[in-house]
Amino acid sequence: MTISFHIDHFGFLEDGTFKQRYLVADKHWQQPGGPILLYVGNEGDITWFCNNTGFMWEIAEELGAMLVFAEHRYYGESLPFGQDSYSDSKHLNYLTSEQALADFAVLIQNLKNTQPGAQHSPVIAIGGSYGGMLSAWFRMKYPNVVVGALAASAPIWQFPGMVPCGDFYKIVTQDFARSGYNCDTNIRKSWKAINNVSSTASGLQWLSEQFSLCTPLKTKNGIISFKGWLQETWVNLAMVDYPYEANFLQPLPRWPVQVVCKYLGFNSTVSDYQLLHGVSQAAKVYYNYTGSSSCLNMSESATSSLGWLGWTYQACTEMVMPMCTNGVQDMFEPEEWNFQVFSDECSAMFGVRPRADWAGTVYGGKDISSHSNIIFSNGGLDPWLAGGVTYNITDSLISIMIPEGAHHLDLRYSNDHDPPSVRAARALEVKYFQQWIRQATKTPQTSKT
Amino acid sequence: MTISFHIDHFGFLEDGTFKQRYLVADKHWQQPGGPILLYVGNEGDITWFCNNTGFMWEIAEELGAMLVFAEHRYYGESLPFGQDSYSDSKHLNYLTSEQALADFAVLIQNLKNTQPGAQHSPVIAIGGSYGGMLSAWFRMKYPNVVVGALAASAPIWQFPGMVPCGDFYKIVTQDFARSGYNCDTNIRKSWKAINNVSSTASGLQWLSEQFSLCTPLKTKNGIISFKGWLQETWVNLAMVDYPYEANFLQPLPRWPVQVVCKYLGFNSTVSDYQLLHGVSQAAKVYYNYTGSSSCLNMSESATSSLGWLGWTYQACTEMVMPMCTNGVQDMFEPEEWNFQVFSDECSAMFGVRPRADWAGTVYGGKDISSHSNIIFSNGGLDPWLAGGVTYNITDSLISIMIPEGAHHLDLRYSNDHDPPSVRAARALEVKYFQQWIRQATKTPQTSKT
Repeated sequence: MTISFHIDHFGFLEDGTFKQRYLVADKHWQQPGGPILLYVGNEGDITWFCNNTGFMWEIAEELGAMLVFAEHRYYGESLPFGQDSYSDSKHLNYLTSEQALADFAVLIQNLKNTQPGAQHSPVIAIGGSYGGMLSAWFRMKYPNVVVGALAASAPIWQFPGMVPCGDFYKIVTQDFARSGYNCDTNIRKSWKAINNVSSTASGLQWLSEQFSLCTPLKTKNGIISFKGWLQETWVNLAMVDYPYEANFLQPLPRWPVQVVCKYLGFNSTVSDYQLLHGVSQAAKVYYNYTGSSSCLNMSESATSSLGWLGWTYQACTEMVMPMCTNGVQDMFEPEEWNFQVFSDECSAMFGVRPRADWAGTVYGGKDISSHSNIIFSNGGLDPWLAGGVTYNITDSLISIMIPEGAHHLDLRYSNDHDPPSVRAARALEVKYFQQWIRQATKTPQTSKT
Repeated sequence: MTISFHIDHFGFLEDGTFKQRYLVADKHWQQPGGPILLYVGNEGDITWFCNNTGFMWEIAEELGAMLVFAEHRYYGESLPFGQDSYSDSKHLNYLTSEQALADFAVLIQNLKNTQPGAQHSPVIAIGGSYGGMLSAWFRMKYPNVVVGALAASAPIWQFPGMVPCGDFYKIVTQDFARSGYNCDTNIRKSWKAINNVSSTASGLQWLSEQFSLCTPLKTKNGIISFKGWLQETWVNLAMVDYPYEANFLQPLPRWPVQVVCKYLGFNSTVSDYQLLHGVSQAAKVYYNYTGSSSCLNMSESATSSLGWLGWTYQACTEMVMPMCTNGVQDMFEPEEWNFQVFSDECSAMFGVRPRADWAGTVYGGKDISSHSNIIFSNGGLDPWLAGGVTYNITDSLISIMIPEGAHHLDLRYSNDHDPPSVRAARALEVKYFQQWIRQATKTPQTSKT
């Protein structure tokens, strides 16, 4: 279904509207007044999130809930200016988290006003990753619209000055370190090996062949991209290190980091070529588990259901998330966080500059204790844990840790291979949902007079 | 002092900044960590609000507080585009309450980061009328920035569907009814008398002379404006019905509505001309108490320190406040609330259309119980009481009633003629301030790591 929204909620000059997509499943909804579980869409196609959020489908019957999956503006089919939405900074100007939250608020108010039986339905926001951040912020900014929120693997503190910039890559490194003998050590070594091998033309050719690259490496910049692509690969693997075969960013075996690390168990005497052969085998676990790729495309590191360009714009404006590496506590080449360089890149790419402090000001940073009814769930294997809320702030701002969990494992369909920690997390989440619903039903929100 | 703000906090295309004015008084500030009382500027020149908010000056020493008075964008000297700020809807596009709140948030974060001793200072927002609404909303939306808010005479519920549209004028009428014999009855009669008298050319001339109008009445539209101007005069008088001589909207005697009503105590046999002579004398109490006006200017109904045009734009966009009269429970000519007519007028005037439901969605309407630390003070004589919060919502969303108070009397300097109710209100407000400050000092907001 679609609903028309103002392109600009915060100004009245731009009077245009656009159609936002949302999906509804009301098979188990107990009307009137049954709860609504709202998936707060993030940076991608909503059908993909819908299919990867089995948790909501599994609890709908128990809660008698309607499910609503709302697409985030500028992603999937919810394009404010159609094909022109990404054409320049003028058209991109309405791609912000505040506008998205306003969309969701208007959507819910509209549902309540038009859907028979929904007027007094308590609404719970659910989201993962950036969607989890939105979910938490939605409860903070619109507590009149949602009675509570589940923010799964939501790095709401991954902003300047809130957490150390190196924690993210430390966690990636820890995942590899515990998933196989010398696994992190060999990845740490691989960067120098790449530099060595790529210093000759024949080495470059060998590298391209080993990695079955669709476009052979030719330049020094190509090598920088190649290393960046590999780094992203390890990050993505850590994010989706699920305990069962799954297809989130890519189709992958169960515990994919362990599978990858089988190719990286060299001892210290390994040659550069041997090592990089291992790295190439490891990369192919990620990029070609199904064996269907004839070559590896460095410009595609994850599912095309995610909107890479849109997220890059958001990172270049509000979502400024400092990251850094030192090569000691992590397995990457040292790189400091440099806001100015980042800002210049953003300016070159989009003609806009990021505002480093804005997210902290508008969303409260670490000073969020006056809010209520938010669950922050975190996976111990998930690099985004670095920016997550990992302790209970109050008795209604709850943190749940899933030590064996990767990126928002709790939002996925249950699976026989699920560790007990994620089963417990889901049960606790449902318990809080029921408590919020009871609270809302006991003291119904005042309706319009 | 001034601080530079982004013209658009919610978009990154408009990269310009402008200088916002704010006033600081730190004579009594106990640094480090002493509280900051922030006056949240509303639709006018901040120096005028500063001078009319004696309450803050009087409690600064007791609280060891720094006073900050922040001007609202597009008013006073804080013009984002200088002289062009009001030139068209493009330049007016950043005149919204959300942008203003973002300004205040950035101002405080900036003060805390740059002013030695202010880093851990708890901030309390204070405002009256629209500034009171902003003050309450500031606490709701930025609880990380302010620990609490005093919203004096703040009609946060004067939006569509929240309160009956006729209550405002009912309260105006009650004020006149209790301030003199037949006072409301004669004003109710006066509209027909104006219609009668103005139906002839000589009557029109008589009217213009009686009221010493700077520009004589000539047309039927002129009569409509004249009646509108009188209606506004009665409203303003009710708003500033203070128990002592004061100069807020105009210089006025103590209990001005009683003074006005002395000219309106006719019994039922009065002629149209007698009645309107009385009305003209009454109007001159408001417009010429000091005797310095040689004629009455219908285009000036209140101090020029208020930004009439800006507020009209805000009413035409977000601040949609339905008002209506029926001539029975109030003393005015019957007029229904007609959103479509209003919207068309706005479109003609500014090229923008109001969004009736937005304020309720973004600021919570009547569903604000999850917030905390807000005092809503209301005057029993104040027409804006109609849209105010007149009951305790929770034990930290408090309503204080000042039965003998007009528009935010509690914010004014104390006076020997103050009724006990306003003295008690101020004392209670300070008690809450102290409690919020203690809370904040006990559990300091987490500072940046």
